[in-house]
Amino acid sequence: MKNENKAMQGEFADSRSAQRVDGRRTFLRHSAALTAGLVAGEAAAQSATGNLPPNVPAWMKGEGGALSDGVYGLPSPFEKNVVRRGRGDQVMPGSGSAMTPLQSSRGMITPNGLVFERSHAGIPRIDPAQHRLMVHGMVRQPMIFTMDDLMRLPSVSRIHFLECSGNGSREWRTPFAKSVQVSHGLLSCCEWTGVALSTIFEEAGVQAGAEWVLAEGADASAMTRSLPMAKALEDAMLVYAQNGEALRPENGYPLRLFLPGFEGNMSIKWLRRLKVGAEPFMSREETSKYTDSLPDGTARLFTFSMDAKSVITYPAPDHKLAQRGFYEISGLAWTGNGRIRRVDVSTDGGRNWREAALQEPVLSRALTRFRLPWQWDGKPAVLQSRALDESGYVQPTRSQLVAQRGMNSNYHYNAIQSWAVAASGEISNVHA
Amino acid sequence: MKNENKAMQGEFADSRSAQRVDGRRTFLRHSAALTAGLVAGEAAAQSATGNLPPNVPAWMKGEGGALSDGVYGLPSPFEKNVVRRGRGDQVMPGSGSAMTPLQSSRGMITPNGLVFERSHAGIPRIDPAQHRLMVHGMVRQPMIFTMDDLMRLPSVSRIHFLECSGNGSREWRTPFAKSVQVSHGLLSCCEWTGVALSTIFEEAGVQAGAEWVLAEGADASAMTRSLPMAKALEDAMLVYAQNGEALRPENGYPLRLFLPGFEGNMSIKWLRRLKVGAEPFMSREETSKYTDSLPDGTARLFTFSMDAKSVITYPAPDHKLAQRGFYEISGLAWTGNGRIRRVDVSTDGGRNWREAALQEPVLSRALTRFRLPWQWDGKPAVLQSRALDESGYVQPTRSQLVAQRGMNSNYHYNAIQSWAVAASGEISNVHA
Repeated sequence: MKNENKAMQGEFADSRSAQRVDGRRTFLRHSAALTAGLVAGEAAAQSATGNLPPNVPAWMKGEGGALSDGVYGLPSPFEKNVVRRGRGDQVMPGSGSAMTPLQSSRGMITPNGLVFERSHAGIPRIDPAQHRLMVHGMVRQPMIFTMDDLMRLPSVSRIHFLECSGNGSREWRTPFAKSVQVSHGLLSCCEWTGVALSTIFEEAGVQAGAEWVLAEGADASAMTRSLPMAKALEDAMLVYAQNGEALRPENGYPLRLFLPGFEGNMSIKWLRRLKVGAEPFMSREETSKYTDSLPDGTARLFTFSMDAKSVITYPAPDHKLAQRGFYEISGLAWTGNGRIRRVDVSTDGGRNWREAALQEPVLSRALTRFRLPWQWDGKPAVLQSRALDESGYVQPTRSQLVAQRGMNSNYHYNAIQSWAVAASGEISNVHA
Repeated sequence: MKNENKAMQGEFADSRSAQRVDGRRTFLRHSAALTAGLVAGEAAAQSATGNLPPNVPAWMKGEGGALSDGVYGLPSPFEKNVVRRGRGDQVMPGSGSAMTPLQSSRGMITPNGLVFERSHAGIPRIDPAQHRLMVHGMVRQPMIFTMDDLMRLPSVSRIHFLECSGNGSREWRTPFAKSVQVSHGLLSCCEWTGVALSTIFEEAGVQAGAEWVLAEGADASAMTRSLPMAKALEDAMLVYAQNGEALRPENGYPLRLFLPGFEGNMSIKWLRRLKVGAEPFMSREETSKYTDSLPDGTARLFTFSMDAKSVITYPAPDHKLAQRGFYEISGLAWTGNGRIRRVDVSTDGGRNWREAALQEPVLSRALTRFRLPWQWDGKPAVLQSRALDESGYVQPTRSQLVAQRGMNSNYHYNAIQSWAVAASGEISNVHA
């Protein structure tokens, strides 16, 4: 790999350096030149303690809106286009998915109002006082828990990504998506709080030979998956809160299973039942669905962990570059294998790569924000990012993925994404 | 300090131990005993692959609600009481504050819809396309930035708490608050994203002798504070996003200053102007207000950093203990000095202390969740928490704070909070 990033990153590493002639400075000179006259006039009209010039904006001339007393807060009306976009079923509008607007994302946290959703029979309206979790099967003591029971138990909080295994499935065959929301938006990252599943199983007492767990949701589809006992005891959680408040209805209120790094459909929402057994339960969601068709006609079953993946969220097809000059390329990387170790970025379709800066803290099985300064010369460019995780796994190119997995798969698509920048500044989804 | 926590914490450290006779087991036995008959019957009626018994809940019998296509998400209707509670001015309803419901908080992140607010002239409705930031005074090149300009610059994301310096001010004189929302709710923690202020000042060029910066808001009060240039260059940010999306209107949309660890009012919302100078600007908000009256009649000025503080959020006066047995004491600790190093918890009014577990990651100038297992014997108890930060600072008792600062102050109240648990299970705010 050609690593050209040292000099470029140095521009920003030493912010006191006087001899910089980098893109950012060029950009800022342009900005200042546009407005310097205005600055001189406006500054002269202002005193040091805040007396205002006559041309203050309208919102400084009268009292603003009232406090949010007793009101749950919402975004500014100017952000009304930053919402989830969905694909519901015609017959059953609650069956389908709604995607996170990654083109507007910042940092690593996804706000609860924008966390992606995927439901099989709509969003149940569950009364938490009536909800129960049953633990049975190969345990010494079957148990039923109320929500109050669960919320009195020792708790843990962890920041983890959640990704649908079908995220980007249409990209297998054609560069389908017109936005990063559609190509990668079945992806979110929250701080999850709940009870370690190991705590529950310790109390119920798992019998010898119990290697699998059936998890069942309380929606009308009774969404059901099998998970290995090893994962249940490693880091699985019974989650009742996300980002500091109760789970949202579309994300499993009042209780969901959460399996860090595993494909999203296994983190059963509206969790009502855990049955311990010796073998996988072969539910419809792991036989007829959520399997990966291979070129030889066989299918992969139980492909739990999400491999390393990344995507540039800015600039993306949702944006247009107004002029040549400085831009900060920014995106997200994640892996079910643990921590992201490195992200490389190319602006020439993969011929040359530079190492991006990773935003601390880099957490296990969480989204990691990466950033790279970029000087756009106004010529066509192809932007790509490539994630490498602490297990040594490297995100594949699309051709590498297709060579291994063929063209008949729908799940676990994690190829390098290419965004083509035209001379006009418009950006499109391409297979490069 | 008597440290009794080792044995108690050991109960939970080794979750496989068979000889445990701790509170959690007692609690779970009670829970299981209540429901064991039901479990046996319900389990027998269920097949391994999810066939449902006749008495499934109503929400499993029909399709649930539709996807959130084009809709910004909201909490479950069952959580309608988890909202900010405010104290607005009678004449000017936008002047006042609204507090975060800490009694329902989990983990360290505060969701954007519940982040506390404090405004001096209401919440301006600012069009981001019209908003400008001016940088002038002792700089080589005065500049004006549009929001588009700022969002193209190199960005950073950091998780930090924000606390109003008046948080808990009424507790100086009497145990006023009937809830942890009122006693400590001018406190939140978000992932903030924006531009390092040092980046802006590097471009504008700070002149020799420039030691202070005036920051001015675009609300009708033109909220104005002075900050030291050293802080501006250390870690100050121009923030346009919180928890992954645009700032909320009540938190400064579209742009605010953010000063990690400093009292909240200095992180000027709706930021429109930064003026660089040699001396502090002595605005009304740092002379007539936001100063600390001392016993000798003098006042402390420019008390920027928030000292270490903590509070137990569960159990708190908002809750009632239904029965004796196991509870997890949980709370939040924070300090403007960097990282929290340790939190001790007492259940007997400060005679004995045990060290609480800190939830990782423990981040600098961020909320840190602490937890301690507790077996309530049904007798009166007084719960306290005490934070110690990496600078060695120890959160004071109320009497220690009063001895140093007197009874005439309104800001920077950080004394140890006491919650009295009655034999009835009711909890009240006391000075202990």
